[in-house]
Amino acid sequence: MHFSETLLTDLYQLTQAQAYFINGKSELEGSFYMHFRSNPFSGGYTVACGMQQIVDFIESFAFSDDDIDYLRSLRTASGGAMFNNDFLTYLAQMHLEVDVDAVLEGSLIFPYEPIVRVTGSMLQAQIIETPLLNQVGYQTLIATRAARICEVAEGPVAEFGLRRAQGPAGGIFASRAAIIGGCSSTSNVEAGRLFGLPVSGTHAHSWVMAFDSELEAFRAFAQAQPDGCILLVDTYDTIHGVENAIVVGKEMKQRGQELFGIRIDSGDLAWLSIRARSMLDEAGLGYVKIVGSNDLDEYTIKSLHDQGARFDMWGVGTRLATAYETPALAAVYKLSAYRNDANSEWIPTFKATEQLEKSTLPGVLDVRRYYGEDGLIAGDMIYQLDSDVTDEMIVDPHDEMRQKRLIPGSFETLLKPLARKGKIVWKQVSVAECQAHCQASLQTLDPTSRRFMNPHRYPVGLEPTLHELRNDLRRKAKGL
Amino acid sequence: MHFSETLLTDLYQLTQAQAYFINGKSELEGSFYMHFRSNPFSGGYTVACGMQQIVDFIESFAFSDDDIDYLRSLRTASGGAMFNNDFLTYLAQMHLEVDVDAVLEGSLIFPYEPIVRVTGSMLQAQIIETPLLNQVGYQTLIATRAARICEVAEGPVAEFGLRRAQGPAGGIFASRAAIIGGCSSTSNVEAGRLFGLPVSGTHAHSWVMAFDSELEAFRAFAQAQPDGCILLVDTYDTIHGVENAIVVGKEMKQRGQELFGIRIDSGDLAWLSIRARSMLDEAGLGYVKIVGSNDLDEYTIKSLHDQGARFDMWGVGTRLATAYETPALAAVYKLSAYRNDANSEWIPTFKATEQLEKSTLPGVLDVRRYYGEDGLIAGDMIYQLDSDVTDEMIVDPHDEMRQKRLIPGSFETLLKPLARKGKIVWKQVSVAECQAHCQASLQTLDPTSRRFMNPHRYPVGLEPTLHELRNDLRRKAKGL
Repeated sequence: MHFSETLLTDLYQLTQAQAYFINGKSELEGSFYMHFRSNPFSGGYTVACGMQQIVDFIESFAFSDDDIDYLRSLRTASGGAMFNNDFLTYLAQMHLEVDVDAVLEGSLIFPYEPIVRVTGSMLQAQIIETPLLNQVGYQTLIATRAARICEVAEGPVAEFGLRRAQGPAGGIFASRAAIIGGCSSTSNVEAGRLFGLPVSGTHAHSWVMAFDSELEAFRAFAQAQPDGCILLVDTYDTIHGVENAIVVGKEMKQRGQELFGIRIDSGDLAWLSIRARSMLDEAGLGYVKIVGSNDLDEYTIKSLHDQGARFDMWGVGTRLATAYETPALAAVYKLSAYRNDANSEWIPTFKATEQLEKSTLPGVLDVRRYYGEDGLIAGDMIYQLDSDVTDEMIVDPHDEMRQKRLIPGSFETLLKPLARKGKIVWKQVSVAECQAHCQASLQTLDPTSRRFMNPHRYPVGLEPTLHELRNDLRRKAKGL
Repeated sequence: MHFSETLLTDLYQLTQAQAYFINGKSELEGSFYMHFRSNPFSGGYTVACGMQQIVDFIESFAFSDDDIDYLRSLRTASGGAMFNNDFLTYLAQMHLEVDVDAVLEGSLIFPYEPIVRVTGSMLQAQIIETPLLNQVGYQTLIATRAARICEVAEGPVAEFGLRRAQGPAGGIFASRAAIIGGCSSTSNVEAGRLFGLPVSGTHAHSWVMAFDSELEAFRAFAQAQPDGCILLVDTYDTIHGVENAIVVGKEMKQRGQELFGIRIDSGDLAWLSIRARSMLDEAGLGYVKIVGSNDLDEYTIKSLHDQGARFDMWGVGTRLATAYETPALAAVYKLSAYRNDANSEWIPTFKATEQLEKSTLPGVLDVRRYYGEDGLIAGDMIYQLDSDVTDEMIVDPHDEMRQKRLIPGSFETLLKPLARKGKIVWKQVSVAECQAHCQASLQTLDPTSRRFMNPHRYPVGLEPTLHELRNDLRRKAKGL
């Protein structure tokens, strides 16, 4: 299917853009940052993902004639044109000229810190807000879930959630993000093609049901696909299914072939896998792998391991591709500074709210990640890009008594240039490289922050002068 | 963006198709039915949606040269070609020739009954399983949520979930399904264009933050967009924001214009809306509408009404577009009969499992919906297409003592022809017509089944001879 990514935005981004245009404020510049307020799945970390799709979006951004015609056709409630001709002409000729900086895909990210920064005309920076939140929010969620699942899996995990994913492209990007988070393969053929992902699969229950007997079905499948053959053994009675798989496994052995595996998709997975393992081993088929599936997630896999289950590989679908318990990252994109044009001074902005957690940070922001002497990451500092960081101390954004001193100089800057004046400067890396970066990043995080139950909160704080600036702006907003 | 819908399937559908081909079983026919096991959101009904996308999928289905080249490039673990040349040639020339029958979009559907039936070669019926479950499952979920929200809203509901939706097409199809379920408009411009949906929007907090004062920002916005202008009043202090909106509203009045509305997006929505209503009324701006938003769903809207909140319209995002509490419908697609070729007799199949709820129904199936004397729907009967229904009685599929007698002849058949031999015979109707059908359908359901808390279970049962057939097959499977 084909759809216009340029129009894939909220209407208010375009009506607002027109309002800037009409008010003679097309040159007004803003600096926006994307962040989120809590790690999904009540976890201790989040895995950044979807930045390549910002690149793709910026590269292909242009209002086509069809797009403009559609906007021209829109009417307000009273029947007038929603968009005026001057503005539509402006849009038709517009090139994105924003600067974008973003965290690398596969990097660990934490609540409240900027993970993408967009600087440029307010008009343009707003139009790209919606697609950016959509792609980065969703893929980040799925990469995080995949990392959690792979952390406990002790074996390859295949993602096969397409049928339960939220819409067709949901499935495509879920597959991409799942691989970056650590999955070994996906069942999704189109995602495999688009992103060069390893694809894998077994067979369905219907294959077994369409033959007069399960044994006949297994024989036919092994005949057609001797290489990497995995037999699904739970269509009727699982233990009997394992027996039939053993018959076929032995026949393959006599032909000099190896049955690759069996898959168990229902019932008491722990008990069945233990029983199947011993049956296979006794039959001289110790090399046959056992694949587990059935609404799995990190918790069920962990529990199966705890029960001594004997699975070698996993297939994970619904709970990975939809991020089940946390189906939205709830990421936001906030204005933190503005200026009248590219040559003026930045004016830091501050959105006050009743809840401190929902207020924003002021200034053009960046993030440094500091390392400790143990080589693990020690804390992230949010700071204003134009400030001299002299005091390598961070102040918790919601509790100023909570402070941490970091080792001077031992940092890397998290936001990397993605676009300059709309031109892409991002180094495209493969999905496999992003996956490797994710694995390496996870190793730098203290295990106490990686655990599932009540993880230790990784320190993210404000550089002291940023903390002071925010306090000043808060006081002013409250009239103190 | 563009992607191949034909490859948007699980790899095992294609490897299995090759296995049918290699085994000389390309002509083997199956009858599959799609169903789901429980109403989402612990509700009493589900709204069918996404069938038009099956039509679009079938119409555009074809393996392109690029698709075939990709499949040809795939390798098994041992390095051999995953697909052989004969099969790829077969695929390249293949036309879908399946028969499809489906429930109308906007119809109410219930657990365990067939909502889509696909009959044709096993090979083809399996390839389309994945996209069908993906599209119908997701859109059905969103249409159901929208219907629930609109049922309590007492005013127009705008869907604006794109930024939090699961991927770009997630947003597009969520918008379509939300309108079918009852929403009045969407913020999603591309969904508006693709499906002819009404689009709407207000402005963002950043608009206010990019001006020196909120009043100045409101004035500028009203100037640029006097028609249908809605001012977002909670950027700094909501009550002060309402005061500023009143200033602008009065200025507009003097110019002969009407401020359309204000939007409150945070804080105590009930209290703020009551206060804002009386402030607007006292200022002679009784016509100005109040729009509510902020992570709303049917429960919060109901609660706000119970507290006397004064909202006229709603904006609903995350919890609608991701179906939050139930992010997957968990629909399945099961083989219920097969035959060697189009001229043979159908052989009913049965997948036995430990749990009766997870076993399948045998035969080529259809559904009749019966009406009671009160004009409300009284029960759905699942029956075999080729059986003479002589006893208009239904037997609960999981408790045979639970039976209900229906009024003879007072039924409509739920599954309507969508495709015959791959040719579309479905009457395309507009999204607005689907929405009207949904509204009318909801009126035929007893209010006890529409309530949110412990809804009354609507009766769905098996026609007596189907019940007997399933019992026979179960006994046989258990060796009784």
